[in-house]
Amino acid sequence: MTVLNVIKHRFSVRKYKPKPVRTKDLYAILEAARFAQSSNNLQDWRFIIVRNENTRKNLVEATKGKNFVGEAPVVIVCCGINTNHKMTCGQHSYVIDVAIAMENMALVAWERGLGTCWLGAFYEDRVKELLNISGEDTRVVGILTLGYSALSAKLSGKIQKLNLNPKKNRLPLDTIVKYETW
Amino acid sequence: MTVLNVIKHRFSVRKYKPKPVRTKDLYAILEAARFAQSSNNLQDWRFIIVRNENTRKNLVEATKGKNFVGEAPVVIVCCGINTNHKMTCGQHSYVIDVAIAMENMALVAWERGLGTCWLGAFYEDRVKELLNISGEDTRVVGILTLGYSALSAKLSGKIQKLNLNPKKNRLPLDTIVKYETW
Repeated sequence: MTVLNVIKHRFSVRKYKPKPVRTKDLYAILEAARFAQSSNNLQDWRFIIVRNENTRKNLVEATKGKNFVGEAPVVIVCCGINTNHKMTCGQHSYVIDVAIAMENMALVAWERGLGTCWLGAFYEDRVKELLNISGEDTRVVGILTLGYSALSAKLSGKIQKLNLNPKKNRLPLDTIVKYETW
Repeated sequence: MTVLNVIKHRFSVRKYKPKPVRTKDLYAILEAARFAQSSNNLQDWRFIIVRNENTRKNLVEATKGKNFVGEAPVVIVCCGINTNHKMTCGQHSYVIDVAIAMENMALVAWERGLGTCWLGAFYEDRVKELLNISGEDTRVVGILTLGYSALSAKLSGKIQKLNLNPKKNRLPLDTIVKYETW
């Protein structure tokens, strides 16, 4: 499958089978994060792999009641470090660098038959408390649930179709692309 | 090539051939951005494709003197809109969403034999002025140069080797990954 096809077919998985993620798949996914580019090669990311059931269940409340966070066999809590560093453009490098690494993981997961859901809706303080992330200088940028989709092939097909129909789900290119000037 | 191999082999290209980018390649790259996931499917990204030589040359100064910005046949200026929107975790969605779309573009470009360099070192005000990006609500998150690498195969191989040697260029997994807790 080409990278573009992985991108086109991927959708957010919010219902997981209890089936564990194979070590070699998790390894490949983490390598995808590790090899990501970052601002000045700062590698200002850290990832906490949560598989413990109690911790995952506790994360449900911290993610505003998302039960699938408790059901997914793996939850990857993606953190930024050196969070004071800004690029000349004014953006904090850690936010963008962690996002790059997370997207790499989401794509490699999909290619290996695994689903993810990228969460930004969580109470950061609560997540930090649950996982003993101390220090103002560390931020939780996103949470990635990881596992096998529990959706039937039929329903998966429907969702993919919906995602692939630009009129339904994505703006057309001429809305999002401009030429030469704004 | 697997997605993981694209990620592992990709490196930032800072020297370009004048050879133009084929329309079908640019189209595939933009589709990679368009199909990216975003917070609440906001699609809070806009992309300006700059091919005009004068504009590219003007962008050199705005990117702190990076001559390759003037040499790359295509420069994609990646903007965020609705920039007041924050996710529950406290991060602005536009920064992360634009980063996801940019990474998708960088990976699809590489798979199609094209190099990119992701720039965060630019004077945003100057870029906005040059491209008539008005409004405080629009931010330039990153700039992606795009084109064929002018490096010899031998030098490209060396760079790839360097990138692939974790001891040289990337922290080991056990530094960036933690299990169950920080």
